Amino acid sequence: MIHIYTGKGKGKTTAATGLMIRALGNGMSPILLRFLKKSESSEDKILKELGIPVEKFGAGFITDKTIKENTELARKGLKKFKQIVKENRYNPVVLDEINIVLNKEIIDTDKFIKLLNEVPESLEVILTGRNAPKKLILEADLVTEMIDVKHYYKKGTPARKGIEY
Amino acid sequence: MIHIYTGKGKGKTTAATGLMIRALGNGMSPILLRFLKKSESSEDKILKELGIPVEKFGAGFITDKTIKENTELARKGLKKFKQIVKENRYNPVVLDEINIVLNKEIIDTDKFIKLLNEVPESLEVILTGRNAPKKLILEADLVTEMIDVKHYYKKGTPARKGIEY
Repeated sequence: MIHIYTGKGKGKTTAATGLMIRALGNGMSPILLRFLKKSESSEDKILKELGIPVEKFGAGFITDKTIKENTELARKGLKKFKQIVKENRYNPVVLDEINIVLNKEIIDTDKFIKLLNEVPESLEVILTGRNAPKKLILEADLVTEMIDVKHYYKKGTPARKGIEY
Repeated sequence: MIHIYTGKGKGKTTAATGLMIRALGNGMSPILLRFLKKSESSEDKILKELGIPVEKFGAGFITDKTIKENTELARKGLKKFKQIVKENRYNPVVLDEINIVLNKEIIDTDKFIKLLNEVPESLEVILTGRNAPKKLILEADLVTEMIDVKHYYKKGTPARKGIEY
């Protein structure tokens, strides 16, 4: 099953984290591949303590400076994802911020969809990030759009450790 | 800060869970009060293992049969929440499915808002559940609406252990 969490609202990556914790509680073996983001997020430590692998394939937000490294890392991440699909060892698999990577054409969406078509129905693949391409949404089994109804960012509250990262 | 996760889409409770894991990773002390739901969710076991208290104040979905018990339990849960606000020991505090309890008028929204007004800004209170009352949305600092763009329920896939509960 392919899940997408997209939209501008808070809660995409945390929903994927919560799903991993739920799956773990049911004896499943989640894995988290982080694209785009370079810095550690506070939850990573706990996830690793719980035996959930956290692998990072990001060079930070996409700029002229980071685009090359992000592209190389994203390809590595995709290779890892292919391996996971083949091995059938982990479930669910979270590809955090992959939607942005696809939207920015760092990875080709058509190629990625081809890969998703090889995913067995028993494997839960969770794709997060803003601006999920429309083609991808058509392929997914579950899509939630997180709408930013109200956000304290707009009042000037900065991103806070333990809450936003 | 008051956060609301509402809407019909998948990801409200899991987003709250993910936020608790993130906060824990930053050395904070989350607590989860579950309203409405009676049955255990797969993540509860892991949360408890991590030292996050999970307290239950639900008698199952609201029916003529459960309304009395749900009302009594919801009042107990609210009392517990008042105590938490006073003690200043836990942060964040998740009140899972409270939005439904308020929408169904099992707890009076005006009274609840009065209580929220006593919450110090340093305490993160996370309110989840469909149909958050409009008054409540006006009071919150952050509101995400989870829109159900596509859901495999509609194709007949039942709720699955480890994924939906």
